[in-house]
Amino acid sequence: MSGTLYGVGLGPGDPELMTLKAVRLISKARVIAYPALAGSDSFARSIAAEILPVNVEEIRVDIPMTPARAPAQRAYDAGAVRIADRLTGGQDVVFLCEGDPLFYGSFMYMNARLCGRFPVQTVPGVTSVTAGAAAVGQPLSARNEVLTIIPGPLDEAEMEARILGADAMVIMKVGRHLAKIRAVLDRLGLLGRAHYVERATLGTERVMPLTELSEPAPYFSMILLTKGDDPWLKTRL
Amino acid sequence: MSGTLYGVGLGPGDPELMTLKAVRLISKARVIAYPALAGSDSFARSIAAEILPVNVEEIRVDIPMTPARAPAQRAYDAGAVRIADRLTGGQDVVFLCEGDPLFYGSFMYMNARLCGRFPVQTVPGVTSVTAGAAAVGQPLSARNEVLTIIPGPLDEAEMEARILGADAMVIMKVGRHLAKIRAVLDRLGLLGRAHYVERATLGTERVMPLTELSEPAPYFSMILLTKGDDPWLKTRL
Repeated sequence: MSGTLYGVGLGPGDPELMTLKAVRLISKARVIAYPALAGSDSFARSIAAEILPVNVEEIRVDIPMTPARAPAQRAYDAGAVRIADRLTGGQDVVFLCEGDPLFYGSFMYMNARLCGRFPVQTVPGVTSVTAGAAAVGQPLSARNEVLTIIPGPLDEAEMEARILGADAMVIMKVGRHLAKIRAVLDRLGLLGRAHYVERATLGTERVMPLTELSEPAPYFSMILLTKGDDPWLKTRL
Repeated sequence: MSGTLYGVGLGPGDPELMTLKAVRLISKARVIAYPALAGSDSFARSIAAEILPVNVEEIRVDIPMTPARAPAQRAYDAGAVRIADRLTGGQDVVFLCEGDPLFYGSFMYMNARLCGRFPVQTVPGVTSVTAGAAAVGQPLSARNEVLTIIPGPLDEAEMEARILGADAMVIMKVGRHLAKIRAVLDRLGLLGRAHYVERATLGTERVMPLTELSEPAPYFSMILLTKGDDPWLKTRL
């Protein structure tokens, strides 16, 4: 009997936003695995750090940070071999994922490599998207609105087209794309509606109108924007 | 000192997908509130049922099911008055929300009515969207893909335009819009890529290729679809 691979979402960063299911699986784990940018601490591991069992075996998958995809894919290949070895031996492996495993997450690469040969279960987690809306304190999407989630690296023309076609939007992974995003929003007359959220739910969280942001943005940052003006959502008690 | 209104996301239905923070706030609550479709049990309350404190005060907000908006808005008005009364008296109120409070949720109507006068905190939850992807077992969105979330009631032409502009999409609240959605996907040649998920994470969950669905769909159902064919996401160990 081979073991099961669990892809476990840990939420946006505050350990209290882990689900009961994530906590149960992690605290009973014999083997965990997680991605880490080469040379850095693993964000996923840091969320779960307080509940890791003593003597748990850790499989760290070091992902090189290069624009080329092949080195990262080789790192996933190598990590998958180590995970497959434990699964073949009958041990379950809990793969830790910040946010949700299947929403812009690295777990999907492990899933692709292992799901044909071993049982795989995914445990969904709170995404940074809804955590960002909670930090801003305004609805992400209401009623029959279309919500579009756009990655920051998208080119300018396509980003503009996608924003035009949405009622509400979230631009993820702002980082070094901040100037381009600002230009698009300014051209569309939407700059004044945009909220900026950095490291949602962490102790270092920052939230502000995008117009007030003066520094560069880190990778874990997003912009939330809604075009809707639903009169029922105005304060009117 | 007035109390705080907590909008607490409970996740898609499986009580084990509640966050630690949701469990902490609910299990210590003196007053809870929740929406319910008039005459029915509250889905939100059912998720938290096992952890409700003995003798907790319950404010049930009965939402009439009519196409007109005014009756529902009057129900929120009346619920907000009852909640405001407890907040004014210095008691915290925990408003229970299925999924996430600010993602197509009814909490946003309470938030709009009360956030100007009382402290409001939102606790994000796992959405049915990522729970649906976990049930299907395939990525929702990867790398630089645009993810669009479309409500089922959208009219046919607009739905088609939004699907054309997305790499990956989720169509929520399928229900009585199933035939229309099928027609759009068929016209775009995407029918064979669509997965249907009903009541994700509940005991009554059903998952299947959309082409195999023969019955009507309930309100709590969705269709997931990705156009991407990332070769790195193919099984290839």
